[in-house]
Amino acid sequence: MNPVEKHLFTVQPFEVDFRGKITFPLLINNMLNAAGHHADKRGFGMLQLNQVGKTWVLSRICFELTGMPNTREEVSIETWIEGVMRSFTFRNFAISVNGNYIGYARTIWAMIDTETRKPENLEDKGIAQYLYNEKECPIGKIVKINTTEEVLVPTDKFTVRYSDLDINQHLNSAKYVEHIFDAFDIEEIGKHNVKKFEIEFIEECRFGEEITIYRGETAPQQHTILLKNGREETVCKCRLTFE
Amino acid sequence: MNPVEKHLFTVQPFEVDFRGKITFPLLINNMLNAAGHHADKRGFGMLQLNQVGKTWVLSRICFELTGMPNTREEVSIETWIEGVMRSFTFRNFAISVNGNYIGYARTIWAMIDTETRKPENLEDKGIAQYLYNEKECPIGKIVKINTTEEVLVPTDKFTVRYSDLDINQHLNSAKYVEHIFDAFDIEEIGKHNVKKFEIEFIEECRFGEEITIYRGETAPQQHTILLKNGREETVCKCRLTFE
Repeated sequence: MNPVEKHLFTVQPFEVDFRGKITFPLLINNMLNAAGHHADKRGFGMLQLNQVGKTWVLSRICFELTGMPNTREEVSIETWIEGVMRSFTFRNFAISVNGNYIGYARTIWAMIDTETRKPENLEDKGIAQYLYNEKECPIGKIVKINTTEEVLVPTDKFTVRYSDLDINQHLNSAKYVEHIFDAFDIEEIGKHNVKKFEIEFIEECRFGEEITIYRGETAPQQHTILLKNGREETVCKCRLTFE
Repeated sequence: MNPVEKHLFTVQPFEVDFRGKITFPLLINNMLNAAGHHADKRGFGMLQLNQVGKTWVLSRICFELTGMPNTREEVSIETWIEGVMRSFTFRNFAISVNGNYIGYARTIWAMIDTETRKPENLEDKGIAQYLYNEKECPIGKIVKINTTEEVLVPTDKFTVRYSDLDINQHLNSAKYVEHIFDAFDIEEIGKHNVKKFEIEFIEECRFGEEITIYRGETAPQQHTILLKNGREETVCKCRLTFE
């Protein structure tokens, strides 16, 4: 089987923001769906894992892009696994519109046991046969988001609701992203395209938890965002760089 | 051209709630997309209207259903226009999974001028040639949601954010629905299927507006919800009946 899976979709009129471009969380959602199709077809997707009490957990995304798809454009998301280690896999994405690449992403995933929440050994899961290094992913490696020296201030709060939950009853990955984008003013988010988006998912968030959003402009056009739960634990870090 | 348009989609793993069923707002979104395809193909869709400074405004939905599609199921949404009057069109929907109908909806739409916000005369828009009465829509007519005698109490608030906005910079129809569902506890929303969903969109909501949600159980298993803006104007009424 081809190590690269291609997921096609058309941006629907009710999936765009006020600029007529697909919303960032929905693009992320489509990437996750592409990853799901890739893994399901190759025997290590949620379909198979849920039957044996395991699940994939998305740990990090680094996404660089030069544009966003517009309403009615057909988008192609290609995804493949570049590497596998004992506890992590490295999955890449290439996003194109009309044959032109508009973005690339690198992601890191772990597999856990849904009962114990402990990481699984990925070396015996049949993933290695699909490793692929021949497709270009011309963006830098994922780096840690440094928040220690920065002055971040609480700017917003949200409570985890019904629409936020995934099938494991945790805040769904795309919804972290939606809440982060919603912490910005329309002027900030609407007038500049996102050039780079980095996120680290650290802790799960459950229904009813109140999450505080901390933000700061940590370089010109660069915003660092921290999400903390009620126990002051950092649940997510994000860095957003505008054009 | 066939007066009925069929829109097919597969429920993706990242589009479901914690029960593994498509979220209600996403189902509504798909219905709006189906309506969009129907209208675009017949010459009176947003594609054509936006070029002449007009737009469609969804006024009401009445939706009765016996089930919700699960992850990976292919859903068919059929839509057609049952009637047209001077200021409104009546559009119906039939939703099926694997050839079995699981729901029907009636909706009312107006067309407005995007500058003046005044309603357009729909009798000269070429819609009449697509009127269709031969397909069954076996649910009651849309009725007004009565809120005058009811005791509704404020239970929640939200602010209109970036992700809430449609291309006209107003709170997007599916997002009204999402905020309404998010006003419920997971126990209420997760343990009972929605049997009937009625909504009236009354006022537009803009970025930054704070909306208060009023709620009350107005009959057994029936909840009435009212959304008010900061000027105490009712922007939306909704009635939700659980199984």
